[in-house]
Parts: sequence; C-alpha cells; structure tokens
Amino acid sequence: MPFLNEKKTFLAKQDKSRKGEMDEKVIPLVQLLNRLPDYYTTSSCSGRVYLWKGTGKKNQTQWLKVSHELITADFLDSDDKVGLIWLRLEPLILHVACKDLAAANTLLELVRRLYKKSCLLSIQNKIIVEVRGSEFMEMPLYLNGTRLFAGEKGWLVEVVNEKLKKMGEGREKTERIVAGWS
Amino acid sequence: MPFLNEKKTFLAKQDKSRKGEMDEKVIPLVQLLNRLPDYYTTSSCSGRVYLWKGTGKKNQTQWLKVSHELITADFLDSDDKVGLIWLRLEPLILHVACKDLAAANTLLELVRRLYKKSCLLSIQNKIIVEVRGSEFMEMPLYLNGTRLFAGEKGWLVEVVNEKLKKMGEGREKTERIVAGWS
Repeated sequence: MPFLNEKKTFLAKQDKSRKGEMDEKVIPLVQLLNRLPDYYTTSSCSGRVYLWKGTGKKNQTQWLKVSHELITADFLDSDDKVGLIWLRLEPLILHVACKDLAAANTLLELVRRLYKKSCLLSIQNKIIVEVRGSEFMEMPLYLNGTRLFAGEKGWLVEVVNEKLKKMGEGREKTERIVAGWS
Repeated sequence: MPFLNEKKTFLAKQDKSRKGEMDEKVIPLVQLLNRLPDYYTTSSCSGRVYLWKGTGKKNQTQWLKVSHELITADFLDSDDKVGLIWLRLEPLILHVACKDLAAANTLLELVRRLYKKSCLLSIQNKIIVEVRGSEFMEMPLYLNGTRLFAGEKGWLVEVVNEKLKKMGEGREKTERIVAGWS
C-alpha cells in the first residue's frame, strides 16, 4: 500500500491506548508530525509518572494512578495495602512511521539533538522511528501499606516534578524544531 | 571499507570503557557474536547496579560504586555525605555492528524474543543493533548522608539481586541461541 494511503488508514483508526492514559500534552507535536507528508505517529506519550504493582508483564500489572501533569503530595498516597507498589516515571515516547529509510534517517538525526536514546524500532514492513527521552525513575514506594521512602514527601514530589518539567521543555523545543522543519 | 576489514580494525582497538567497568560476564556472548561473519560488538555490558551522583550528564556525574555481580548489604552503604545519591540498575546492553540491513533484521528478530526493547541505533555508515534488556531501577538513596529508603536493607538487596539474576538467565539463554545459530 502506498505510504499516504497507509497513513490515512492508520490515522482513521481509533486510539487503542489504555483508558485513562490519553495524553493531551503531546497532541500539538503529534499534529505537527502528522502534517508532514513522509511521517505519521503510531503511538505517543508526553511522559508520565505512575504507581503500579504486579510482575511488570502486561495483564499481570495494575496501574493504581497515573499523571501526565505535575503532581502534588497526595499523588504519592496509596489506599492499596497489599504487596509491593512501585513509583515509575517514563519519558516522552513517540513512534513515528516513516515513508522510507531516508526519511527515517532525517528524523532520527533531527530528534537525536534532544533525545539521544532515539532509535529505529523496525525497518521491515513499516519503518518506525522511536523518539525517546532519557528521564526515568523506578523505585519501590510501598510494601504491604508501609511507605518505603523515608524522606519528606514534598521533596520527592519536587524530584518527580523537576523531571516532568524538563520533559515539557524538551517537548516544546521539539515542537518548535518540527514546526520550523515543515 | 569492506565489513570484514572494518571488523578486524575495530576489534584490534583497545577497550575504551570506563575504568573499573570492565565486565567479564558478557565476554562469552560477545565472543559468540564476534565469531559470526556478519557481526561484531562495539560496546557491551551484562547489566549492572551502581550508586551515582551529579546531573546525569557525562563529566558531571560521579560513580561511587558499581557491581555486575549480585550485591550484599554493604553495597548500599555510602561514605559520601554530600548531596543526592541515586541507586541505578541498568539491563544488558550490547551494540552490534551488522554487515547489512538484512543481517541487522535477522539479529533483531532473534533477540526480540528475549529483549523486546532492542532496536537499531544507526543504519547510515555503520549499521548498529542495540540489544537491550528491560530491567531498570532509579531511586534516590541518600540525601546529605541521610538514607531515603525506609525499608530493610536486606529486602532492597533482594529486589536488586532478583533483577540481576533475571538478567543473567536472559544472557545465558541468549548465549545458547547465538551458539546454536552460528
């Protein structure tokens, strides 16, 4: 199927992301990318922080709460008193389908200035570039209802928010770069 | 330069990794990969856990201690009483130069069975596949000498070691796959 048809078909499909995970902050960047003839996004997240429990495998993992926005201290509370609860922070991640390898390379070089961990996920069938930030956290937060973080909650909130702010700045910078590019 | 010459030249160079970071556990897998005519490794780590401080940028980051082996409780101690010290755990990461895109795809499909986050770092000049595990941790551990983890040290040691063991099992499985492949 020619790339532009594939793009139309894909973008007409419904969003398949997890409920409650829809992420408005990344929409402007997604729209800027989708306006370029050689690209379309297949998956996107502006960055997020969440509390989770389980094995980490799909279907064995439960998300207790998630935020794409700056958090307040109550975000770190949990009513769940059973087992191990982790705090995880993930960076901006975009999956971008590209018309050909040349288009993929161009995008990759552009985004690497800000997102050094970006890479190609696939060069067969679909050519997919992953734009990936570097910020992350993964720390055990509660064990059977006991808080495992000994510091002040407000301090941890700031650590998380600093990373979220940094991600926001990176995203806005990328929006400007992509807008200037098209 | 033909791929085999490039491979010989590269493998004759000295190891440029950080001092103290050399990692014997990954050598068998590296040797198996380098025995294959279409591949050679340019960078490798079997997975590690370390205490660090700084901004996270190179030259602004200090590693206080690092282990590729299972840890004991004293690993979590720190004599450094200034600033914020993080505990980080990183997965197996291999960078593998490939003869051509077909060879890269073959390797990528093979390693994705175990390492879903694997990808292509580059398809221009050098073609590089990154084999990347999924295990990670990043948690604040000390702030100005005060321990930020409120749980039992032995429990945290086990959490870290469970992840290191899982990485070891993955690596051994990959060794068997690559050995059978050559």
